[in-house]
Amino acid sequence: MRTDGWPRPKAVCNREVSTLTDTSQTQPFTNQSILLAKRPTGLPDASTFRFETSAVPSVQDGEFLVRTLWLSVDPYMRGRMNDVKSYVPPFPVNEVIRGGGIGQVVASRHPDFEAGDLVTGELPWQRYVTSRGRGLRKLNPSLQPITAALGVVGMTGLTAYFGLFEVGRPRPGETVVVSGAAGAVGSVVGQLAKLAGCRVVGIAGSDEKIEYLTKELGFDAAINYKGTDLREAVRAACPNGVDVYFDNVGGDITDAVVFRMNDFGRIALCGQISAYNLARPDVGPRLLPLFVMRRLSAQGFIVSDFSSRFSEGLQRLARWHQAGQLKSRETVIEGFERLPDAFLGLFRGDNVGKLLVKVADPVHPAG
Amino acid sequence: MRTDGWPRPKAVCNREVSTLTDTSQTQPFTNQSILLAKRPTGLPDASTFRFETSAVPSVQDGEFLVRTLWLSVDPYMRGRMNDVKSYVPPFPVNEVIRGGGIGQVVASRHPDFEAGDLVTGELPWQRYVTSRGRGLRKLNPSLQPITAALGVVGMTGLTAYFGLFEVGRPRPGETVVVSGAAGAVGSVVGQLAKLAGCRVVGIAGSDEKIEYLTKELGFDAAINYKGTDLREAVRAACPNGVDVYFDNVGGDITDAVVFRMNDFGRIALCGQISAYNLARPDVGPRLLPLFVMRRLSAQGFIVSDFSSRFSEGLQRLARWHQAGQLKSRETVIEGFERLPDAFLGLFRGDNVGKLLVKVADPVHPAG
Repeated sequence: MRTDGWPRPKAVCNREVSTLTDTSQTQPFTNQSILLAKRPTGLPDASTFRFETSAVPSVQDGEFLVRTLWLSVDPYMRGRMNDVKSYVPPFPVNEVIRGGGIGQVVASRHPDFEAGDLVTGELPWQRYVTSRGRGLRKLNPSLQPITAALGVVGMTGLTAYFGLFEVGRPRPGETVVVSGAAGAVGSVVGQLAKLAGCRVVGIAGSDEKIEYLTKELGFDAAINYKGTDLREAVRAACPNGVDVYFDNVGGDITDAVVFRMNDFGRIALCGQISAYNLARPDVGPRLLPLFVMRRLSAQGFIVSDFSSRFSEGLQRLARWHQAGQLKSRETVIEGFERLPDAFLGLFRGDNVGKLLVKVADPVHPAG
Repeated sequence: MRTDGWPRPKAVCNREVSTLTDTSQTQPFTNQSILLAKRPTGLPDASTFRFETSAVPSVQDGEFLVRTLWLSVDPYMRGRMNDVKSYVPPFPVNEVIRGGGIGQVVASRHPDFEAGDLVTGELPWQRYVTSRGRGLRKLNPSLQPITAALGVVGMTGLTAYFGLFEVGRPRPGETVVVSGAAGAVGSVVGQLAKLAGCRVVGIAGSDEKIEYLTKELGFDAAINYKGTDLREAVRAACPNGVDVYFDNVGGDITDAVVFRMNDFGRIALCGQISAYNLARPDVGPRLLPLFVMRRLSAQGFIVSDFSSRFSEGLQRLARWHQAGQLKSRETVIEGFERLPDAFLGLFRGDNVGKLLVKVADPVHPAG
């Protein structure tokens, strides 16, 4: 589907927002969605997705209409494209894909939301959606930039915060290794581990990323896994062995790190992006004998395991972020129609920091 | 070395014990030791061991002389034959092998030990040894049989107790799977899990063992891994999936169990006997992606990690044992000279329950 003719959203003034609260005004707009066309085998491609157009839904009592501004693409979403038991239910085929997002209320018949409000939470890959508020929370517009709510002061920051501190449990002076270190989660993990007084080593896939980690984020060392003898590189970067390994990647990278772990080392298993597009389980050296010899522990987790403590995490992340102690970079792809390709970019390692798709600009209700 | 001519120890009366406290009397005896002749590659064999004879050492002030009665052979000892970093230091080549044992004091110039006392702890593979008491504790002779101190009310029982309750953390109604279930540790794990209100499934390597587990020890189900489609068998035996896996074995058996684990399942990694004789790490399906999907955790442990709580564990194990709620079987090999072969029998799966070598009978000091 060609989308070039799709009207680009533009900033509107306060009066126009007010106008939009008249729900009859929403009817003329055309909506656009991206559905899961079929379950991919291996790496998804264009045929995995299908674009659909429809009328923008009318707003019923108790509902509000959200215009999508930003959508987040994250590696875990690949798992939802498979029809397998996992921590989140699979995306149904022929239904709209969903993920983290930021939107703006453009019409409301809900007592707690009004036009102009920014909201964040799980949103469909769709330009407009009605909501009763479930799963969405208002976003404090003083957060700068607001997209931090999808990254460093949002789910990926929380994933780093709880995974590192609750699962990895680093102590000052320990060596923490992070794979996928330049990604949205990994880049926060490394900075938090530095705040905790650790030696921090990142593993990433380009010289640009390595430089970002060591020059901008303060990692003590970083390894470009491409074209490197990984075991030798880990040995050189971790002269005292590895105490905590925060793993986003799996596969050969993880093998190399685990073989260097110290007694009582802890492995926080956040993701295994190297395995997400495999049609069947890969084989590799058996690691569990090492677990016994060195009393290692490994724990898989997802951020929602800690949902009762999100406000704690968000407060701390926001404070560090505002104080400049927690830096973040975003890789922004512009245009709703580029969502599928942006998502596939995760598996090419395109992004430094959080990978976001910008769908529309917010209106600015302040007159 | 032929050992047929070696005089078999026999019970002596109280007076003879007294005589033995005259250390000059110990000199005429000949001692015998088993040393690590060379580090094995793969499965050890006769050439791994060397027998030596020497004089029985004289007893100095502050020492006592122990005659070895029982020696324990345990899978973890294979690891000590390698020259690799592990939780216990490697056995030095050309030095006497050491392991768990029970002995009797036959002469003493130590204030706290007297002839007739039974002691247990780490002993050399040697008929007589002098000690200052370090690493040995007196054994309560009311423990029946005293060999329980090497098994169900000793290190293997403690391994089961702490591994299951501290690492596996089973809750009533959960399904607990144990590999090496008919062995010294596994057979205790299964019974403890039954006491904790769990459904218990054992995996072992013969029909005799399977029958022992289900008929004598009260396991709910047991699987003979030989000649079985393991994944199918685990599925059939665990209709509600697996919540806790206590692993003594590793390899294919572990793969089959891990693929059936439920969300938040816990893997207590006690041993990996299938890997102990491999010259290089085996390969197998990568398991860590499943850890992320299902939020599994795995932790390697050894019993000494819980040494500060041994008295708690021993008290509870002794109580259950005395009450008949914790049964144990021993496989006894008679004769010091058969220690190497007994040890190798661990890897052939010869034993049901604790595998022990009887070296000598105790004297009975009671007149």
